[in-house]
Amino acid sequence: MPRPITFLSDYGLADEFVGVVHAVIARICPDARIIDLGHGVPRHDVVAGALALARAVPYAAPGVHLAVVDPEVGARRRAVALRTAQEARILVGPDNGLLIPAAERFGGVAEAVEISHSPWRLEPVSATFHGRDVFAPVTARLAGGEPFAAAGAPLDPAGLVRLERPRAHRDADGSIVAHAVATDAFGNVLLDLDHGQLGEFGWLRLGRALRLKRGDRVVRAQYVRTFADVAPGELLVYEDASQTVAIAVNSGDAAAELALRPGDEVRISAP
Amino acid sequence: MPRPITFLSDYGLADEFVGVVHAVIARICPDARIIDLGHGVPRHDVVAGALALARAVPYAAPGVHLAVVDPEVGARRRAVALRTAQEARILVGPDNGLLIPAAERFGGVAEAVEISHSPWRLEPVSATFHGRDVFAPVTARLAGGEPFAAAGAPLDPAGLVRLERPRAHRDADGSIVAHAVATDAFGNVLLDLDHGQLGEFGWLRLGRALRLKRGDRVVRAQYVRTFADVAPGELLVYEDASQTVAIAVNSGDAAAELALRPGDEVRISAP
Amino acid sequence: MPRPITFLSDYGLADEFVGVVHAVIARICPDARIIDLGHGVPRHDVVAGALALARAVPYAAPGVHLAVVDPEVGARRRAVALRTAQEARILVGPDNGLLIPAAERFGGVAEAVEISHSPWRLEPVSATFHGRDVFAPVTARLAGGEPFAAAGAPLDPAGLVRLERPRAHRDADGSIVAHAVATDAFGNVLLDLDHGQLGEFGWLRLGRALRLKRGDRVVRAQYVRTFADVAPGELLVYEDASQTVAIAVNSGDAAAELALRPGDEVRISAP
Repeated sequence: MPRPITFLSDYGLADEFVGVVHAVIARICPDARIIDLGHGVPRHDVVAGALALARAVPYAAPGVHLAVVDPEVGARRRAVALRTAQEARILVGPDNGLLIPAAERFGGVAEAVEISHSPWRLEPVSATFHGRDVFAPVTARLAGGEPFAAAGAPLDPAGLVRLERPRAHRDADGSIVAHAVATDAFGNVLLDLDHGQLGEFGWLRLGRALRLKRGDRVVRAQYVRTFADVAPGELLVYEDASQTVAIAVNSGDAAAELALRPGDEVRISAP
Repeated sequence: MPRPITFLSDYGLADEFVGVVHAVIARICPDARIIDLGHGVPRHDVVAGALALARAVPYAAPGVHLAVVDPEVGARRRAVALRTAQEARILVGPDNGLLIPAAERFGGVAEAVEISHSPWRLEPVSATFHGRDVFAPVTARLAGGEPFAAAGAPLDPAGLVRLERPRAHRDADGSIVAHAVATDAFGNVLLDLDHGQLGEFGWLRLGRALRLKRGDRVVRAQYVRTFADVAPGELLVYEDASQTVAIAVNSGDAAAELALRPGDEVRISAP
Repeated sequence: MPRPITFLSDYGLADEFVGVVHAVIARICPDARIIDLGHGVPRHDVVAGALALARAVPYAAPGVHLAVVDPEVGARRRAVALRTAQEARILVGPDNGLLIPAAERFGGVAEAVEISHSPWRLEPVSATFHGRDVFAPVTARLAGGEPFAAAGAPLDPAGLVRLERPRAHRDADGSIVAHAVATDAFGNVLLDLDHGQLGEFGWLRLGRALRLKRGDRVVRAQYVRTFADVAPGELLVYEDASQTVAIAVNSGDAAAELALRPGDEVRISAP
């Protein structure tokens, strides 16, 4: 049995790109199962793609995890396959930081290969669709059991590109300085603050009333367990299903209401 | 062989939610086949989801039918698995009426279990993503052949939540008082009137000219078999592929043209 | 093992239509693998669907290729299954030209059958959803190994409907008169000009500065290999991954910037 495959990208579903990648993989490895982890990552948003991949991959069986958010396709960025220290999961995609947060969920990168000139690539390699010409055939061969090292040329994992990501911190007055990282389809806003960091901010407890400051605007919210804990239309701060702290409006759209976009700063404090 | 699985939700495809549910199911039951019946149900629209499920499920092989449109996730609503009287199909989802119209296509509910505390759930159960933590593992285990009763605690089917749905009726003057129930991606408007009820309205026959009244506005239409039976841009009333009576504009958008939204009343009469 | 199936349509993913087609196929031929080549073809745009199909099918394994973009469903257009001269691929869909460009990639149509009254259809055949009632069951039976000729009544391939498509030509002054054929989700504009025709226009070489004329507006662009070869915000002309010549803006939307829609003329010349 081939190893299971997952696939995440910013290709969207309007065109045939996702289908062609599936077709190339199926042609090389007809018995491989491919699970789409989503193709709605905002175009070229490597950070949003990296975080979605890191949230989703731990729920999938160990296998080959293909991800493509690749603004520099056709330029000098490298294409890579990575093997994680734990569970020997394989990640395939561009060397632009996209794969690293997912790898870190499994002990980081134990082994890496540069696959731009993989012997398994489809010739001629196009300038714009490496998903089809490089990543899909490499994914299919590795899922089918070919040796990892045969995918390309060995690479020092220390030289892989890593994302610079904002990270929430504590201000002198004790308030939390966080940043919007992504918004989901419902307008919920994910912050750069997760369950593991909450210990630093001891005053943030379930049921606590909060003050959110976004630019000059100050609004009130509550730190609760879920949407239904506040009235419809009211703001809440909660830990989402991936243990990331997020801002939402019950039955509403927090991103629109607070005009919050990825990168924006939000201050959270006691009222 | 596992039983086949279908999956319908309002999660949309912008995020990784649908993919994660697939991943959880595949990890527990790697050989199960999962058919997506659609994830574009309007957010939190339980009636639209229930009707789409009831239209689609009869075309699928008997198996486990997972559906999630769940505005009260994390609040007190129950999570359930239902077994239908005919064909022993299994429906899994929230107890908010979503599953009932599909169950009624198969003789109604013969047996029910409450699965919120299913021994198969993923711990910790998040407050907002029961699709991943409760519904997916229960679906996977039942597809894999575990006994239905082992999914949770027995429940009296008479106590299940049922939807209140409008239903077209005949007015004193013989006209039909119908309601928009849903609109599809093309702007066709489905009414709460189906093939089985047409006998009550004997004057409604193929080829008949009609008058549609929506608020103060009156327009003309024709009762025909299909779009091509009227000129482009003209209104038609027809029985759609699920034997539901619907309003459309040939090569146009009836929902926009008549400003019709789910719940709105439309009167149909002879001109 | 059944033959692999691909499926492309303009159904979109908002409704249950795509899922129901999958369900019907799986019920008849449970082991068939179905790859979605995309369902985001602009509604009723037969030319865009035909070109997407022709671009995608060569990457899929030989099998049964279902495609539905069918503005005349329920009217007099025929439903067909076609067998290609090379590789014996089978194409299933409406007889409106949709399938022909894909067939031409495999030597054209060797054998054709009219399937509107196929013995395998689901009764009653609806007026609007032949994907479910005609195309899906025929696809499933052919994938399962039933003989091609048993799908319906023999048909002379010479009588199949073909699309009239614009084709770029050389003007008296040496400039290229091309037409927009489709735009992708990123606003890149595909022209009716492909790699095979470029020999006619010897002056068009990599690195060449160009003048694009769209109506009264004249802009400058460069003929390059890929996006990264021009600065962000600048126009480029390039050969896309399907060897079609296209116009794009690096990190931008060429369709919006030039107000180009399918059918519009663009003149390309040396500056």
